Amino acid sequence: MEGFGVHTSMWTMQWDREGAERAIQAAVDYNMDFLEIALLDAASVDADHTRALLEKHEMRAVCSLGLPQPVWPSHNPEGAVEYLKLVFDTAKAMGAEAVSGVTYGGIGERTDLPPTESELSNVARALDASAKYAKSLGLLFGIEPVNRYETHLINTGWQARDMIERVGSDNIFIHLDTYHMNIEEKGAANGILDARDHLRYIHLSESDRGTPGEGCCDWDEVFAALAAIGFKGGLAMESFINMPPEIAHGLSVWRPVAQNFQEVMDKGLPFLRNKAAQYRLK
Amino acid sequence: MEGFGVHTSMWTMQWDREGAERAIQAAVDYNMDFLEIALLDAASVDADHTRALLEKHEMRAVCSLGLPQPVWPSHNPEGAVEYLKLVFDTAKAMGAEAVSGVTYGGIGERTDLPPTESELSNVARALDASAKYAKSLGLLFGIEPVNRYETHLINTGWQARDMIERVGSDNIFIHLDTYHMNIEEKGAANGILDARDHLRYIHLSESDRGTPGEGCCDWDEVFAALAAIGFKGGLAMESFINMPPEIAHGLSVWRPVAQNFQEVMDKGLPFLRNKAAQYRLK
Amino acid sequence: MEGFGVHTSMWTMQWDREGAERAIQAAVDYNMDFLEIALLDAASVDADHTRALLEKHEMRAVCSLGLPQPVWPSHNPEGAVEYLKLVFDTAKAMGAEAVSGVTYGGIGERTDLPPTESELSNVARALDASAKYAKSLGLLFGIEPVNRYETHLINTGWQARDMIERVGSDNIFIHLDTYHMNIEEKGAANGILDARDHLRYIHLSESDRGTPGEGCCDWDEVFAALAAIGFKGGLAMESFINMPPEIAHGLSVWRPVAQNFQEVMDKGLPFLRNKAAQYRLK
Amino acid sequence: MEGFGVHTSMWTMQWDREGAERAIQAAVDYNMDFLEIALLDAASVDADHTRALLEKHEMRAVCSLGLPQPVWPSHNPEGAVEYLKLVFDTAKAMGAEAVSGVTYGGIGERTDLPPTESELSNVARALDASAKYAKSLGLLFGIEPVNRYETHLINTGWQARDMIERVGSDNIFIHLDTYHMNIEEKGAANGILDARDHLRYIHLSESDRGTPGEGCCDWDEVFAALAAIGFKGGLAMESFINMPPEIAHGLSVWRPVAQNFQEVMDKGLPFLRNKAAQYRLK
Repeated sequence: MEGFGVHTSMWTMQWDREGAERAIQAAVDYNMDFLEIALLDAASVDADHTRALLEKHEMRAVCSLGLPQPVWPSHNPEGAVEYLKLVFDTAKAMGAEAVSGVTYGGIGERTDLPPTESELSNVARALDASAKYAKSLGLLFGIEPVNRYETHLINTGWQARDMIERVGSDNIFIHLDTYHMNIEEKGAANGILDARDHLRYIHLSESDRGTPGEGCCDWDEVFAALAAIGFKGGLAMESFINMPPEIAHGLSVWRPVAQNFQEVMDKGLPFLRNKAAQYRLK
Repeated sequence: MEGFGVHTSMWTMQWDREGAERAIQAAVDYNMDFLEIALLDAASVDADHTRALLEKHEMRAVCSLGLPQPVWPSHNPEGAVEYLKLVFDTAKAMGAEAVSGVTYGGIGERTDLPPTESELSNVARALDASAKYAKSLGLLFGIEPVNRYETHLINTGWQARDMIERVGSDNIFIHLDTYHMNIEEKGAANGILDARDHLRYIHLSESDRGTPGEGCCDWDEVFAALAAIGFKGGLAMESFINMPPEIAHGLSVWRPVAQNFQEVMDKGLPFLRNKAAQYRLK
Repeated sequence: MEGFGVHTSMWTMQWDREGAERAIQAAVDYNMDFLEIALLDAASVDADHTRALLEKHEMRAVCSLGLPQPVWPSHNPEGAVEYLKLVFDTAKAMGAEAVSGVTYGGIGERTDLPPTESELSNVARALDASAKYAKSLGLLFGIEPVNRYETHLINTGWQARDMIERVGSDNIFIHLDTYHMNIEEKGAANGILDARDHLRYIHLSESDRGTPGEGCCDWDEVFAALAAIGFKGGLAMESFINMPPEIAHGLSVWRPVAQNFQEVMDKGLPFLRNKAAQYRLK
Repeated sequence: MEGFGVHTSMWTMQWDREGAERAIQAAVDYNMDFLEIALLDAASVDADHTRALLEKHEMRAVCSLGLPQPVWPSHNPEGAVEYLKLVFDTAKAMGAEAVSGVTYGGIGERTDLPPTESELSNVARALDASAKYAKSLGLLFGIEPVNRYETHLINTGWQARDMIERVGSDNIFIHLDTYHMNIEEKGAANGILDARDHLRYIHLSESDRGTPGEGCCDWDEVFAALAAIGFKGGLAMESFINMPPEIAHGLSVWRPVAQNFQEVMDKGLPFLRNKAAQYRLK
C-alpha cells in the first residue's frame, strides 16, 4: 500500500472473474503499484481466483467498501462487526493488504442531524472490534471521511482522527480523499495536517470526480503537504464517469465528467505522477 | 442588483417583522449594497413592512427560494408557475428587483437518474411562463445551478445556459454560486466562462460554506474571470453556519463551519472586498 | 500568430542554416502552429533560406529581439528606428508575421531610477515610427513588458497599454510573458485584464523558466483570463535551461531549471495544451 | 524569533535614534512579536539606545544585511569574517537574537557565470568561522537565498541546505523569502521542503513586494507546508514600496507597488495572520 494505485471502477464495477482479469491486466499495463478493489458483495467473490491473478502479476491490492443499511455501526455495531469479519476474511483470502472506505457507516447515511454521542460511541465500538479482528489477520483497516451529503458522521480529517483516538488499535488508519476534502476542509492541506501520522492512504480524485488536473482541486498544495508530513502510503487515483443507474444514485453522477476512462488514465495519471515527482513524493 | 450584498441567513432565518428589521439594519451597518431575502413562505411575509424598511434605508433587495415538492416544475409545470406568480407578486410588493435561486426545482430534487428530456422540457415551459410574468412586473428572474447532491437537473453553468437558451426571455439570467462551482465546474472560472453574458448574480460562498477566504475556493481565478467578462451584477456573500435542524437537513450542515456570523462578516467580507478591488471589479 | 508556438531556444541559439533546419523540423515534429525566431543579429540571417523552409513546411513565424545598447530608444530613438527597419526588412524577407520582444529598449537596460518622461517620450517616438514602417510591410509589431531586473521602463501590462496608447498605430500590440507577470502583476491575470484587446501574443514560461506546470505560475488563472477576454493570439512556450555563458548573463540562468529541452517539450507542452483545452481556448 | 515580525523598512530606512524610536513604537502598536532591523552600517548604530528601547517595550529583534563588495566572501572570506564580527558584536549589543540575510555575499553579486567551486568553498569557510563567532555570543546566524538577479551564488532552498551542510555549526539556519521562492522554486512549498529542519526564519513578501495577499504568491501552499513541517520560527512581513533612489537600485523598485505602508500593515498583515491561523500555525 504505497506508490500509485487505481480504483477498479476504471475498468469494472463487477468483481467477477472476467472483471478481475480485465482490471488486473489493465493495472499491470499502466504500471500501477496496487489496485483498489471495490468489495460490494464479499460473498460473491472468487477469492482464490483473485489471489492467483494478483500473485501471478505481483500486483498488490486494497479492498474498499461502504456498509449496507442493516449493519450501519451507528445503530447496529454488532451487526457491523459480523459483516466486516466476512469482508476481512475475504480480503485476506484475496491477498489484499487492507480494507478501507466508509467502514464506519454507509454511503448516504444521514439522519439530517449532527452525529450524536450515542452514534459515535457505537461507531467507535464497532471499529475497535473490527480493527482487532483485522489485526489478527495481518490486515490494515482504514476509515475514509466523506462529504456532508454522503454521511453526517465523519466529514473531515480531524473528525477521523478523533474517532481513531477513541479506538487506539495501531492497524487503524485514516484514508483521505481529495474530492471530499475539497468540500469539507478549510484549505486543501488541512485534512492532511490533521490526519498526519494516521494518514496511510489517499484517494486522488478531482473536484468533479473527472480527470485529475482538470478541475478545482489544488494539487500543488495537496502534494506539498503530503511531502511535508513524510507521507509513505498509497496514492489511489479514483474517478467516476459513466455509472450504471443503480450506482449513479449513491455517487450522484448524472453526467459524464470526463470523455472516458482512457482520458483519465492517459491524462490524469501522468498529471498526478508529475505532481508527485515535482514535490519529490516518489 | 450590483455591488456587494449578503444573504439574510447571516442574521435571520425568519423573514417576520423582527427578522426584517434586524437584517436590514445590519446590512446598513455593514454598508452593503443589497440584501438577499430568503422567501421560504411568501404568503407569510408582510411585504409593505419590508418595502417601507428598504425604502427608508435605501437598501436594495433580491428574493431567493427553492420550490416545494408539490410544485416542482419537472413534474408540475403549471403548479410551479402558479406558485412563482405569488412569489413574484410578493417580491414586487416588497420592493425587490429580482427573484432567483433553485427556481427550476427543489433543493434536494433527485430522481437518481440523469435528467430526462421530459423533465427538462417541463422545466423550460415553467421557466418561460414564469419569466414572462416576472417581466410584466419589471422583475429579473434567475436560475442557480446547484451541486449534484442538491439536484439532478442543473449542476453547471453550461447546463444553465442551455436551459436559458430554451426560454429566451430577456429578463432571465444565470445565478452562479462558488460553493457549487467548486464541486461541479472544470476549473473555478469555467462556469463563469459558460454563463458569461447571462451571468447577473453570483453567490460568493466558501467551499465549506464557512468564512470566505478560509477554504478551498480559488478566489483569484473567480474574481479575475468576473473582471475579464466585464461582470456588472450582484456579488452576494453567503454562509451557513449554525442552522436549525429543519434547515440543516436541506443544506447538510452538521457542524459549525465558522465560529459565528460575526467572523464571516468581519473577516470574510473584507477578504472578498479586497479581492474584488485587486481585480478592479468594483 | 495563433495557436501554439515555441521559442527556438528549445533547439538552437544560432539562427544559421543548420540551426534553422533543426528548429523548423523539430517544430513540425511537435505539431507546432508557429515558431518564434530570436533575431539577435538580423544582418547575418539567410532570410531566403528560412523563408523557403517555412514555406516548405507551412510553418508560421514570429521574430523577437531586444535592442543593443547603442540604439536604445530611450536615448537614441532615431538609431532605434534605423535598427528596427533592418529587422523588419529581414523579418519580412524571412516570411515572419510579426516582430516583438523588448523592442522598446534592451534586456538589462536600467538607469536605477524610475523611467523619466523624457525616456518614455523618446520610446513612444521610436515605437511610433517603427510601427508605421512595420505596417507598410504588413507586419505586426509587439512590445513585451519584462521584469524590474531586466528593464526599468515597462514592467507591467498597464504600462505597456499606456505606451501603446501614446503610439496609436493599429498594428502595435502587447506581448505578455507569464514569467515576468508572475513577478510584476498583482495576480496572475491582472496583466491580461490590463492588456485585454491589445494582447495578441503571450509567452507561456514557467516561474523559474523551466518546465511549464512544474513551478509557481497559476496556469488556471492565466488560461481562464485568456479565455474570458476572448484571446485569439499566439501562445508561445518559452524555456531557458542550459545557456552558453554569454547568454546566461542576460537571462541570469545559473543552474539547469529543467533536465533538458525534451522534458520541456514532452511534459510542459502537453500540460499547457491540456490547460488551454480545459478552458476551451483552442 | 518566533511569531510575527516586520521589517523596519515599513517605517524607516535609517536606523538612527529617531528611526529606531519610530519603528519600535510602531511595532508595539501593531502588536508585533519582533522587529527585523536592517543593519546597513553597523558602526553608526547607537546599540545601547536600541537595546534600551527594545527592553523597555519587550520587543525582540533580528538584524539583517547584505555584505559590501570589498568583503564578499566568495573572494575575500577573511574580510567577510572580520566585517561580520563587527556586525555580530553590534547585534549582540543591540539585544538582537540573530543576524541573517545575504550574509554569504552581496545583493547584486553576479559574475554572470554559475558559482564556481572556489567561490562556494570560500563562502563556506567564511560562514563557518562567522557562525562559530556568532555562537560564542549566543547568536543565531542565517543565510537567505535570493533570486537569480540578486546573486548567482544561492538562489534556492536546496542550495542553502547544501551550503549549511558544508558548515555544520548548529546555530546556522536557512532564512527563506516568499518573494524569491516565487521566482526560483519549483512550487511554492519546495524551498520549505528542502530547508525543512534548517528553516527558522521566513520573509513573507508578496510577489511584487507589495501588499501580501494581493499578488501571485500561493500563500495557502506556503502556510500549509510551514505547518506540515512543524515550523516554529519567525514570520517576518517584508514590503518595499517607495524607496529612495540609492536603495531602489539594489531592490529594483521603480514604481510604488502598494499605495503606502499603512495599506501593507492594515490589509497585508491581517491577511497573513488569518492564513497562519487557518493552517493553525500560530
